[in-house]
Amino acid sequence: MVTEEENVGIAKIRRIVREKNPLVHCITNYVTVNDCANALLAIGASPVMADDIDEVVEIASLANALVLNIGTLNVRTVQSMVAAGIRAMELRRPVILDPVGAGASRLRTDTARDLIRAIPFAVIRGNVSEIKTLVAGSGTTRGVDADESDWDGNALADVIASAGTLARRTGAVVAVTGATDIVSDGARVFAIRNGHPLMARITGSGCMLSALVGAFCGASPDRLLDAVVAALCAMGLAGELAAARTEKENAGTGSFRTYLIDSLSKMDETTLAGGMKLERRA
Amino acid sequence: MVTEEENVGIAKIRRIVREKNPLVHCITNYVTVNDCANALLAIGASPVMADDIDEVVEIASLANALVLNIGTLNVRTVQSMVAAGIRAMELRRPVILDPVGAGASRLRTDTARDLIRAIPFAVIRGNVSEIKTLVAGSGTTRGVDADESDWDGNALADVIASAGTLARRTGAVVAVTGATDIVSDGARVFAIRNGHPLMARITGSGCMLSALVGAFCGASPDRLLDAVVAALCAMGLAGELAAARTEKENAGTGSFRTYLIDSLSKMDETTLAGGMKLERRA
Amino acid sequence: MVTEEENVGIAKIRRIVREKNPLVHCITNYVTVNDCANALLAIGASPVMADDIDEVVEIASLANALVLNIGTLNVRTVQSMVAAGIRAMELRRPVILDPVGAGASRLRTDTARDLIRAIPFAVIRGNVSEIKTLVAGSGTTRGVDADESDWDGNALADVIASAGTLARRTGAVVAVTGATDIVSDGARVFAIRNGHPLMARITGSGCMLSALVGAFCGASPDRLLDAVVAALCAMGLAGELAAARTEKENAGTGSFRTYLIDSLSKMDETTLAGGMKLERRA
Repeated sequence: MVTEEENVGIAKIRRIVREKNPLVHCITNYVTVNDCANALLAIGASPVMADDIDEVVEIASLANALVLNIGTLNVRTVQSMVAAGIRAMELRRPVILDPVGAGASRLRTDTARDLIRAIPFAVIRGNVSEIKTLVAGSGTTRGVDADESDWDGNALADVIASAGTLARRTGAVVAVTGATDIVSDGARVFAIRNGHPLMARITGSGCMLSALVGAFCGASPDRLLDAVVAALCAMGLAGELAAARTEKENAGTGSFRTYLIDSLSKMDETTLAGGMKLERRA
Repeated sequence: MVTEEENVGIAKIRRIVREKNPLVHCITNYVTVNDCANALLAIGASPVMADDIDEVVEIASLANALVLNIGTLNVRTVQSMVAAGIRAMELRRPVILDPVGAGASRLRTDTARDLIRAIPFAVIRGNVSEIKTLVAGSGTTRGVDADESDWDGNALADVIASAGTLARRTGAVVAVTGATDIVSDGARVFAIRNGHPLMARITGSGCMLSALVGAFCGASPDRLLDAVVAALCAMGLAGELAAARTEKENAGTGSFRTYLIDSLSKMDETTLAGGMKLERRA
Repeated sequence: MVTEEENVGIAKIRRIVREKNPLVHCITNYVTVNDCANALLAIGASPVMADDIDEVVEIASLANALVLNIGTLNVRTVQSMVAAGIRAMELRRPVILDPVGAGASRLRTDTARDLIRAIPFAVIRGNVSEIKTLVAGSGTTRGVDADESDWDGNALADVIASAGTLARRTGAVVAVTGATDIVSDGARVFAIRNGHPLMARITGSGCMLSALVGAFCGASPDRLLDAVVAALCAMGLAGELAAARTEKENAGTGSFRTYLIDSLSKMDETTLAGGMKLERRA
């Protein structure tokens, strides 16, 4: 179990984000980039999206965290990701990897693997298919969205093992999101049961979450594991609150998307501490 | 007229989309790509947006349908469109063309024509200017949005003739959307009177529709004409329902956009069958 | 002070936009391009987003105004910006520059400066950091968003001086937006106190404003200074109305974003004339 005190300590990072207003540099896909920017602004962080090789090193130098998302890969931006990642590493700023669709194509699997070799990521956040692909070196991801069957076919223990393996191998905090989220630094493990199925019915839930992880880690770089847990709890709780409002109004997924951002923007550390469904697994 | 039984049979494809959850590969523009992803998720399909030449063949192999949209053309993505289209053709998966802005620039007109030569499209969906450009080989489209005057200057019979000509020439089902939509496979012709003028006051109505056509065809590849008709009716009806809510609340085009996705996500086959304004013209 | 008559004359440009339905060609960033398109459609203009070098000259020839936004710069689109800008200049169509993030990287600062050398802009619209960077030739912008401290450290007189300097040097109308907006053509100066802090909590407020400036200037090319003022007042007032609704509903930044577009789409010249907080400073 997680004590009330630990809960409060983790939720407090929500406040630190607002106070520090971290600048989060995202090199990300063009599908959900607008959602990521709005999610960051909603929680009190500042986004800067820049991917040209001629400026990413400078922009990375200004930022408190860097988020690399391979959702719509191309050769041009992969080079920028490596250059920005190396600069952020030099400055000891947390770098987050979202290996979107790793396993769905050789290009994505190879790129994710190459990025992991080149950059000492602070955090790797993906769904079960993506994380298992990174552990195994190959995969069978269907498209870029989490496979619902992930959780049927895989006991939670198996997911925890994969997260731990990747964490120990890379030195990163690994977050595997799904019906239950697992966060592991290779030694300690948390399970998070926040969230709602409607989150899988809009695009960008995962990408926004990775951006938020960047903000929480950028605001609290000395407590990375707690920062990742706080970000996942905040996103999941925002999904629950937005779903409740959507269902109450008998609305649909368009309204849910709007309410998700509303919930992120209005959530304070007290709401977060009260809504976190967090348990320690190791 | 269309019989009640035919209506029900066409509307049933709405349910098949939800059951089959087709994966729709879109190579599309960066203006409305987020809207397309959310529209697909709203109806129960899964989007995958990938345009890099090094992965589109693999991604196209995973997908149930491929949608090519030339809204923000560049040389890089045109090559990817051809490669993905050829792969989808080999696997007999439906490929949909949205010739956005054909007629507005030589590049767009030529690219649309070249794509039609290279790929045996299952469906071509555009507005009157775009379809007439494809029939004539040149055009005078103003920008990328449907010209309101299209329907004043052109009798419906003329639109039906253009759709039929393009359908017979290409082997595709041709959908011409506007105040009245026309769908033709070169022999049979349907007219659809669903829709609302507010749909032209937001970006992405046409692009989302083409994505939905991909989902409906991917879920029902053996009944392409019916699938296209069902997708157009579903989108038009969603527009009507969203407009009614917008007007009731005295809201504007921002709310309309949200409610359009809401309506898509909540629409079942019964609502669709009851709201379809469909007639057979040939 | 601005007389009631002048107010009405400026607000009237809102109606001219609706009547003329100007086509606005945007070469812009992929973060907020969808927002820009929806903002243009909301006020009754038509967007066309095209950035390929092989078509921008043709597209610029069709359009009533051209908006160049360097939010996600890359080499490919900078070439297109210059080609489109030169064509628009030849046709005497207003060209608007949004130097997003000038000062945050050498690439952005240099590109903005190069564009200003190559193209006689009708309007340059930025925040204080960006405009000061353009005046000084270098800068220290933090990311791409307006720095809150801009207004603390800089007396309004200083901002007015910077705007005037840049206006006289370039021949452009210069708009500096922030808590108070300043518009200067080098001789006449207006201050605008419309707007709301929530506008800085969503992405795209600045980009949408620059797109609207394009629409107002495209609809009223013989009254550029008034057109810029009208666009800034309209955007600021829409922000106020959207904020009031957001606060009344105890909603968040997701709803605010939707309501901002709602307010733009519903605002007529009477509402605008009644809500403008405009004063003449020189």
